[in-house]
Amino acid sequence: MDLKAYLEERRALVNRALEAYLPAVRCPAFRVVQAMHYSLFAGGKRLRPILCLAGADAVGGDITEVLPVACALEMIHTYSLIHDDLPAMDDDDLRRGQPTCHKKYDEATAILAGDGLLTAAFHTLAEAAPRFEEREIALLAVIQLIADAAGYRGMVGGQMLDLQAEGREVTLKELETIHRLKTGALLTASVRSGALMAGGTRAEVAALASYGEKFGLVFQITDDLLDVEGEAAEMGKATGMDAQRRKATYPGVVGRDEAREWARRLVETAIADLEPFGPRAEPLREIARYLLARRS
Amino acid sequence: MDLKAYLEERRALVNRALEAYLPAVRCPAFRVVQAMHYSLFAGGKRLRPILCLAGADAVGGDITEVLPVACALEMIHTYSLIHDDLPAMDDDDLRRGQPTCHKKYDEATAILAGDGLLTAAFHTLAEAAPRFEEREIALLAVIQLIADAAGYRGMVGGQMLDLQAEGREVTLKELETIHRLKTGALLTASVRSGALMAGGTRAEVAALASYGEKFGLVFQITDDLLDVEGEAAEMGKATGMDAQRRKATYPGVVGRDEAREWARRLVETAIADLEPFGPRAEPLREIARYLLARRS
Repeated sequence: MDLKAYLEERRALVNRALEAYLPAVRCPAFRVVQAMHYSLFAGGKRLRPILCLAGADAVGGDITEVLPVACALEMIHTYSLIHDDLPAMDDDDLRRGQPTCHKKYDEATAILAGDGLLTAAFHTLAEAAPRFEEREIALLAVIQLIADAAGYRGMVGGQMLDLQAEGREVTLKELETIHRLKTGALLTASVRSGALMAGGTRAEVAALASYGEKFGLVFQITDDLLDVEGEAAEMGKATGMDAQRRKATYPGVVGRDEAREWARRLVETAIADLEPFGPRAEPLREIARYLLARRS
Repeated sequence: MDLKAYLEERRALVNRALEAYLPAVRCPAFRVVQAMHYSLFAGGKRLRPILCLAGADAVGGDITEVLPVACALEMIHTYSLIHDDLPAMDDDDLRRGQPTCHKKYDEATAILAGDGLLTAAFHTLAEAAPRFEEREIALLAVIQLIADAAGYRGMVGGQMLDLQAEGREVTLKELETIHRLKTGALLTASVRSGALMAGGTRAEVAALASYGEKFGLVFQITDDLLDVEGEAAEMGKATGMDAQRRKATYPGVVGRDEAREWARRLVETAIADLEPFGPRAEPLREIARYLLARRS
């Protein structure tokens, strides 16, 4: 398959749907809507929506029905970036080569834009109800799954642990916990929720969850490697920041070569999880392989 | 009826349920859970949960079934207080006589605690699904209603407008828009969602929405009056802050006497909205009257 064309087509599909959910139109609180829109359309790769739709593909579902879930995941991801970039958190000025939300607007607006996107995500999910006639139970299960992955037992908890770990030595086990919560939980929820919403069986959803967990770990390892090896121009943000902040990273803890080899083995086992799905899971296989080769 | 005993009994019911949803137990990200717990149990009046349960009472519903919705509303309210108190927003050190979340912990933890509570609210709602067998459509409608009231078209939008209005003259119309979004939307959603979840008819829910909108306005007018007239000791926070920050207030725009008289008339019309409900709406009537007499 032509992965590049596939990703571009899916990105365009997601972008059109997101634009419909959050048009940059006049409303009383126009400034916060503008800020939400700014960050939502600041060049994201739409990885979580793409995983969600690919999860639906894998179980033979109709992806247009799963689009609201895919959009909600991107809103949650964007909110987390806005809040993580705040001065009180990671204090980043650039994100994907553009000023971060609090730099473009101000801190208060950025906090509210994040809050607004998180809330809009759940609105988008609940509002999808009429599309899912007779499938309300699955939709409620998806909302619960995503809220769990985004909350203190997932992403919020991971960011807390990440901040607490700054400037001190962490063990490999701690590092895994941080990233399993901070990035792994939502990535796993993306592929799971797509399959669940599209009517996948319990066994199918479990197999995709296993794929998702490995995918999340590889994503973080390769992200850390890019921070060490990547070019700032390609990344659209400063590189070498992890070392500067004394953030724990996989290459830092196990070494670069070991980290790269580990990621390669994980991709193999993630692909093995997809065996039962046959050709329908080809995009998920290609996306996992792509992580190893990515430059941004 | 004995309003004081009623409010105390309902508060205890809500507090027990909230404690079960967010036990202060060990988990990887213990610090953020502690901060969420700290703010959630910092002495809130539980007004939104009480309105939600009273909305269910008014339509003859079973309040224990509506408790998850009531708890979710309090989590959302608490998250909004934590974020509003942040240095980049209203920069408050005290809330209900105790240090605000970012003072007790730190800014990053407070941002995450707010994010965690907002997310936990939607988790609590979606997780309630098994309680509402055959009522999944109503539960999804409630999630949508609450997300709308909390988001950029409601509370988040209101806080944005409030910040933008600081330090300049605002018209009465602007002031009404700010408060309709900032506090009115969630108060109205509270009473509406209780009735909706308890199986109220469309007409019943609409009548309670009308009550809720007036209630929200009275709440804000009396809050502004308390800021001018209240004692810091009774309020548990600094008074006179609105003037100090040059925030627009009702007494400031229309005068104290006019504001008090307006609130009194609004309570009368809010009570008129409750006429079809008979004695079942007595708590809602009493709570509205209580607003006029409150000292904190």
